Amino acid sequence: MSKLENIHIGHGSGGELTRELLDTYIFKTFSNPYLDKKHDGAIVDLEGEIAISTDSFVITPIFFKGGNIGELAVNGTVNDVAMCGAIPQYLSLAFIIEEGLRLTDFEAIVKSVSEAAKRSRVQIITGDTKVVEKGKGDKIFINTTGFGRKHPKAAIDVNRIQSGDKIIINGYLAQHGMAIMSEREGLEFETEIKSDTTNLNFIVNKLLDTFGSDIKLFRDPTRGGLATVLNEIAADTHLGVAIGERFFPIQKQVAAACEMLGLDPLYVANEGVFICVVDASAAGAVLEMMQCDEKGKAAAIIGEFTTEHPQKVVMESMIGGKRIVSPLVGEQLPRIC
Amino acid sequence: MSKLENIHIGHGSGGELTRELLDTYIFKTFSNPYLDKKHDGAIVDLEGEIAISTDSFVITPIFFKGGNIGELAVNGTVNDVAMCGAIPQYLSLAFIIEEGLRLTDFEAIVKSVSEAAKRSRVQIITGDTKVVEKGKGDKIFINTTGFGRKHPKAAIDVNRIQSGDKIIINGYLAQHGMAIMSEREGLEFETEIKSDTTNLNFIVNKLLDTFGSDIKLFRDPTRGGLATVLNEIAADTHLGVAIGERFFPIQKQVAAACEMLGLDPLYVANEGVFICVVDASAAGAVLEMMQCDEKGKAAAIIGEFTTEHPQKVVMESMIGGKRIVSPLVGEQLPRIC
Repeated sequence: MSKLENIHIGHGSGGELTRELLDTYIFKTFSNPYLDKKHDGAIVDLEGEIAISTDSFVITPIFFKGGNIGELAVNGTVNDVAMCGAIPQYLSLAFIIEEGLRLTDFEAIVKSVSEAAKRSRVQIITGDTKVVEKGKGDKIFINTTGFGRKHPKAAIDVNRIQSGDKIIINGYLAQHGMAIMSEREGLEFETEIKSDTTNLNFIVNKLLDTFGSDIKLFRDPTRGGLATVLNEIAADTHLGVAIGERFFPIQKQVAAACEMLGLDPLYVANEGVFICVVDASAAGAVLEMMQCDEKGKAAAIIGEFTTEHPQKVVMESMIGGKRIVSPLVGEQLPRIC
Repeated sequence: MSKLENIHIGHGSGGELTRELLDTYIFKTFSNPYLDKKHDGAIVDLEGEIAISTDSFVITPIFFKGGNIGELAVNGTVNDVAMCGAIPQYLSLAFIIEEGLRLTDFEAIVKSVSEAAKRSRVQIITGDTKVVEKGKGDKIFINTTGFGRKHPKAAIDVNRIQSGDKIIINGYLAQHGMAIMSEREGLEFETEIKSDTTNLNFIVNKLLDTFGSDIKLFRDPTRGGLATVLNEIAADTHLGVAIGERFFPIQKQVAAACEMLGLDPLYVANEGVFICVVDASAAGAVLEMMQCDEKGKAAAIIGEFTTEHPQKVVMESMIGGKRIVSPLVGEQLPRIC
């Protein structure tokens, strides 16, 4: 093993080379009572309502400003579990590696997975490693499946949303997508645009502790961006969504980059961003709590639900005009997560 | 959508095209109360000790004699959960699709997933679909993560294995690997060799119902074959494993194909095969029950644990000689599952 510098097809054989790869990079890094059993699966104690979410990460490049695919694979699934109103506890971790990936890159990614898992207080309890021939994959793909118990006060249900409910966003739009885009295009800006990949489970948990059923929905506008998520919710609720462009938190350099590339930030993927739909009576207090949290400093109420224009998202622009915001059709930016 | 014949990069956008793909192929096929919510995750009720296992499937070709990647992805994870001594209940399902995959192929795979899930009585509760550019993947990769409650009588633990415990196998060796191999090499045999991919959860469940803690371990010898799995168990128990070549159930045409290609069936991947380690006192009764089950007709006691040659697997050959069976080094047959 020490002689190999790159992933070899035999690392996926299930034999000695696989065992060596796991012993060197995985078992030491993630050691815990579940994984240490080295069985095909893990047995954990769970009780009651459990949220489960799965995501495969195929982002390119695998290292980017603000993070890498390993960190993203943890944060992404941790956040999806959190969006269900649950407390992420465990993750599974499955790699599909292209032959020839540098072992130093693999090591860096595994380390990032481990650090991100620690930050989110989730344990990696079971996993899988497959290797495909050169040209049959793209460096590395990662699947994580996360689970955790539902927060006792959570009542997340799109059907509970009513006209008048407010939509609050925690932070700046379009950072992740524009970071990846500028990386791919080799663009440089005065201020560097970094991916905002981060874990949202603690802020979500805190909001649920305090506001419980006043919170009706959490969603993270990743692929497809905010426009797509709002359209999905509008469709599901049969209500209209009214938003105001002037309320969107967006950093100057991100807005400038979007303009330069002709991209609408409403369709650009986010990572460390979520929206919550809250009862109007609690909106002010929710906003205040979010703004006091490191992950919600830029929080803003961006709009509300209405019985007007059902199933449509309508935005009031900066200059006061109104337009329908349609969901994303086709692909704006492939392999963003 | 109806105009597209192939997977398009936009099917992975998270936007309208993704939603159309899911509506057409996924939500209708797998409709259940969890998936119908179309949230980022599902909430299920679980209680007590839960087994969790994850696997990514990268097999090539994606359609083969006896099955396809969809069916394999369900059976493989169902079996891994079963090997933990648990009753599989739920699966997550995540696709990484290469641009250009025929939609008819995708449809056939999704249908197979659905049928295999029904046969195993597991529900697909959450999922993910990503698309990568042509040449950055290989048709389709599938990750499944499975969950299920531990069988109340199960006491699966490699540390409970003692000298004298018997090793029982349920069925014929090397079928899956040789089916894939002959498919790739374009070999034809008098009798067609088919993959033995199948679900093992019901036979495992039945054995646990009756024999409980007399069963100390289940393992399915997939990648790396029987030799690798036995070596892993020998290493973990610090005991020796003594097996007899004459006891191995193997079909004539599979043995012939192995010989022709110079492959040792002990290293060839299996799918519908498992071994169980049982207390010697129960071995006869376990064998009998297995032989009465459709999935265990060819069951045989193939060896036992011993204090001799600790951590080594020693096989008595047909002609009476003894040799050490080492674990698989490198890769015998890549992308077999």
